[in-house]
Formats: sequence, structure tokens, C-alpha cells
Amino acid sequence: MKANHTPQETQHPANSLESQEAPTLLVVGTGAVGGFYGAKLAQAGVQVSTVHRSDFDTVSQNGIHIDSIDGDLHFIPHRVLRRVADCQTPPDYLLVTLKALPDLEIAKIIEPVVGPKTVIILLQNGLGVESPVAHAFPENTLISALAFICVQRVAPGRIRHLCFGRITIGCHPEGPSPAVTQLARLFQSAHIPCHVTESPAMARWSKLVWNASFNPISVLAGNATTKEMLDLPESVELIRNIMKEVINIARATGHPLSDGLIEENLQATRQMQPYHTSMALDFMAGRPLETEAILGTAIRIGRKAGIATPCMEGVYALLKLLEKPKKEE
Amino acid sequence: MKANHTPQETQHPANSLESQEAPTLLVVGTGAVGGFYGAKLAQAGVQVSTVHRSDFDTVSQNGIHIDSIDGDLHFIPHRVLRRVADCQTPPDYLLVTLKALPDLEIAKIIEPVVGPKTVIILLQNGLGVESPVAHAFPENTLISALAFICVQRVAPGRIRHLCFGRITIGCHPEGPSPAVTQLARLFQSAHIPCHVTESPAMARWSKLVWNASFNPISVLAGNATTKEMLDLPESVELIRNIMKEVINIARATGHPLSDGLIEENLQATRQMQPYHTSMALDFMAGRPLETEAILGTAIRIGRKAGIATPCMEGVYALLKLLEKPKKEE
Repeated sequence: MKANHTPQETQHPANSLESQEAPTLLVVGTGAVGGFYGAKLAQAGVQVSTVHRSDFDTVSQNGIHIDSIDGDLHFIPHRVLRRVADCQTPPDYLLVTLKALPDLEIAKIIEPVVGPKTVIILLQNGLGVESPVAHAFPENTLISALAFICVQRVAPGRIRHLCFGRITIGCHPEGPSPAVTQLARLFQSAHIPCHVTESPAMARWSKLVWNASFNPISVLAGNATTKEMLDLPESVELIRNIMKEVINIARATGHPLSDGLIEENLQATRQMQPYHTSMALDFMAGRPLETEAILGTAIRIGRKAGIATPCMEGVYALLKLLEKPKKEE
Repeated sequence: MKANHTPQETQHPANSLESQEAPTLLVVGTGAVGGFYGAKLAQAGVQVSTVHRSDFDTVSQNGIHIDSIDGDLHFIPHRVLRRVADCQTPPDYLLVTLKALPDLEIAKIIEPVVGPKTVIILLQNGLGVESPVAHAFPENTLISALAFICVQRVAPGRIRHLCFGRITIGCHPEGPSPAVTQLARLFQSAHIPCHVTESPAMARWSKLVWNASFNPISVLAGNATTKEMLDLPESVELIRNIMKEVINIARATGHPLSDGLIEENLQATRQMQPYHTSMALDFMAGRPLETEAILGTAIRIGRKAGIATPCMEGVYALLKLLEKPKKEE
């Protein structure tokens, strides 16, 4: 019944049609994590478009290929965009998988496509990533999300999924939310184990226990793998010390993490394949590091709460120094 | 009056003659430090021979050239040897400037040339270097020595002297010694400021305040210079924390160092030219690091004395991990 279409509908027939059938989602910062979860949600029937900088040409021609332990997967995005602003209609979901870097103003980057009903999902590491976005879009639902996954971009348009894949999501700042329940259903129908939390802040502190220890150490030790870090008693001790400091800060600020997390994390990591951490891979590739989101913010919160963090401060100082361009003599 | 020479004298005329005129000294491990002080003592009339591994050919042909802030200096050793055992007569002084490495058995290396009256000088960094040598040669005078100098081997037979040069010497384990007084006179006539101490152990702890902080940090921060380390407030804080831990261990074990050493060391380093530490230069050149002599031994002494050393243990763990050969994926 094409004759019944209004001019408005004729201009955007695909969108109008498909938005009734499938939710739309735009991945902003389509690296390994964004590409992987975008592909999975597309499999579950979500209409997934992606934004790319360096990989635009490859992905627009060939899509994204994922070599996954769960079976290989080829993903052709609905639309492949060069810039966020190229997305003409605000999506139902905006999945932000950009690195958490001080210079990256997420709120400004996503501003062109945030509609009044767009649910913003921040799938990023570290602490304090939500505040600027919540401040910029106070009326939008903001979902704070964490991925537990070993995944690497091995070439343009090519991702390697080594292990895990589960995700934790919660409404920022806290409490239940229908949007979170809906998103969890989408992940689950994409066969992604999805845990819903009413305290995403607590989940972020919990994940930081691993990130603040393994990530910086792997970089400072010259791209050491998880296995290499676990094989040396002295570095296991440093990992434990950093984990304990994170737990102490979390506890002092109302997030009662258990000390048992230390051995749980060590045990889980021992069972992983030897893994190059994302921070080490970033460093080797000359990309900026999430030093502030993973260490700096927590150290400052700890300082205000009167918690001593000598080991975190030590690796933080070394990372900052390592990241500074060196002057050749 | 050549006819009067005995056959013995004819066989070793130079030695017999010169040993009456000038003390003999053999440098074992003739890198930047050994080459520099050997050259200076030769200027003061000591008969200095040197042992080389990699630089043997260059030095036997051309000697050692020193580009020094105190004026350039060319040094032709009395004899240039490939191996310690090639030295036919025990020298009056044996100057050991080898790295302090766990695998390097100094007592075994010098054994072929230690005569009953040979004074052994250990000019090495770190703690605990004297014990094995004192144990192997209980009848010999053992001088523990520390160099405060910025000096680098820039090519075979070529040394660059950037600043300082003073030396501290003392009889091991402690107390006054005529041999120390004589050696101090030799250094002084070579225009090397020489401080005599009756407690070389205390001097070693004092020097460790600088070495245990600047050296490991420079390596872990990717060959950072002293200036780069001092320009970042976070790394100055880490330097201070490590210095304080060294002072705490020293104090707990009978070496009453003052907290003032921290700011004194920082101040003195600020006045130096930007300097690549010896440990960073070793790391860049793929040579083994003095991790145990500079950190491990002190940490273990601290543990026995119940002193907490989280920062030293942190950088120690990172250095050990960094030194391990990495498995490429």
C-alpha cells in the first residue's frame, strides 16, 4: 500500500519501517569491544550501525569479521558512518565504546545524535565516566555498562575474541529501570550473558580490582601477559597489593567489596589463556592509555577518603612518566 | 748496569723496576667507572693495567679516551689483558668495577691474581657486595668504595664523563686502616675528591637512597632522564617514598640516616645535567640489571627488620618482570 505513505515516510522508508520492527543502535567508537557487541546485537535482530575513523573504508566494503571462540561471525552493519553526525535519525540506543580518555569529551561527540528518547549506554572502563554525560543529557536514560571479555582488534575490520563475553549493566546512578531490563533481554537473545545491577558504581569498583592491577603492570613490565604476571611471585604480590588498595577505597566510599575478590580475580585470570591486556596493546600501538580512568580517579577518591594507596600511586607515576614523550639526548 | 741484572730481573725488568717506584693496580671490569678511575690513578703515577672483554682489541691498540668535563684525557694502560689470569704478578691493588650481579662470582674471578698483600677495592653499587670476597680472602685488606659520578661508556675505548667524580672509601667491615689512608692519598693526588669513612656500610645505605629510587624508575619509565623524573610531581613523590623506605630500613639496622637526605638528593640531582641512569643505559643495551644489589637485598633486610617497603617491592616486582624474556604470541 505504497500510495498511503506520507511524504515524511517516503523520505525515510527504511527507518520508519524498521523502527517498528527492530530497535536501532549506533555504535560510537567501533573498536574490538564495540564491534563484538554490535555484531552480537545485530544477530539478535537489532538494526546496528557503526561509526569508524581509521577502519571506515575496510568496514564499509567488507563489514567486520570476528574470529571468536564461540564460532566465527561476520557482521555487516546497517550503515557504516565516518562521523556521528552522519547518522540522520537519533537511534533508540547509542552504544559508546570509546576509550575513557581525559581529552575525549563524550557528551560533545554524541550530541548530534542524542534524541529525546535515545538510551545512552556507556560501555567503558574506569571510574567517573558517567557524570559528564549525565550532566549533558539529564532527561535521557543513561546505562552504565561493563564488559568482561578478552577481545582484540587484530586488523582493520578484523576482531579476535579470545574468551569471556559477559556484560554487566545498570541504570546510572542507581536503581531499577525498564530500559535496562529491555537491553538485558536484547543481550540475552544475542547469547551474551548479561547481569543487571542496581548499583553500577559498585560494579565499576569491582571491575577496577582487576583493571587497576593487571593493566598498568602489563604495560610497565614490557607488555607482559597475564600468565607472565602470575608466574612471578613478586608481581602477584604487587597485584594483590593494588587490588587491596582498590577494595579499601571502594569500601571507604560506600561500596562494600569483599577481600575475597582478590583471590577470585587471580584464580579466574589463571584460567584464562595468556592474554595481553588492552592497556598493553594500546601502549604497544602508541595509543593513549586510560591511566586516569583506571588509576588517577580512584587515587584521588582514595586521597579524599584518607586511604593510603602507595602501590597504585607508584604505578600511576610510572605510567604517567612512561607516556610522556622522551627527549632523545 | 745491565750486566748486574739477575736472570729473574731480566725476565720481568719492568715489573721489578717499577714496583719499587709506583704501586701497581689492576682494574677488573674496565667499563666507564673502571676506565675513568684507572686513568686518573695512572695520571697520579700508579702503574695501572686493565682487563677487558669486549673492548680488548680497541683498547690494546688505542688505549682509552675520556671526554671529561674536567678536560679530556687519554689513557694508555701499562698492560691490557683479556683475562684476569693473564696478569702474571699479583698487583698491589685490585680495583673491581664489575657490575654487582648475582651470577657474577667476584671472588672466583679475581682469585688468580690476589696475592698475600693485594689490597682488594670493591668499587660497586648496592648492598652486600663485600661478604663473599671477605669470606674468600680473609687475610687481605678489603676496601669498600663508592663512586659519585656520571660517566658513560659511549663506544669501545671511549668514555664520557658528565659530572661529579668524588669517591668514598672505607675498610670493610669498619674501622680505620692504613691501606685506606694510602689509597685516599693516591686518589687525592689524582685530583679525585676522596672521602674516608670508618663505616662503609653506612655510606652504602646512604648512596642507596639515590640508587634505589632513580635507577629503577628510569628503567620502568622507558629510559627517563633525571630531569624527566624530577619534572613530574607524581614521580617525585614515588622517588621520595622509595628514599624514605631505604632510610627506614637503614635506621632499623643500625645506620642512622637522616630524613634530610631525601631533599638533599633531590636538590643535588636537580643541579645535574639531565642524565640517563646507569641502570637505564644497561637496560637499553640489553645488559643485566643490578636489581638485587640495588633493591632485592635491601627489601629482604627490611623484611627481617619488620619495615614495610611497598614502593620498593613494587618497582622490584616490575623490574624482575621486565627483565624476564617475553614470549611473543
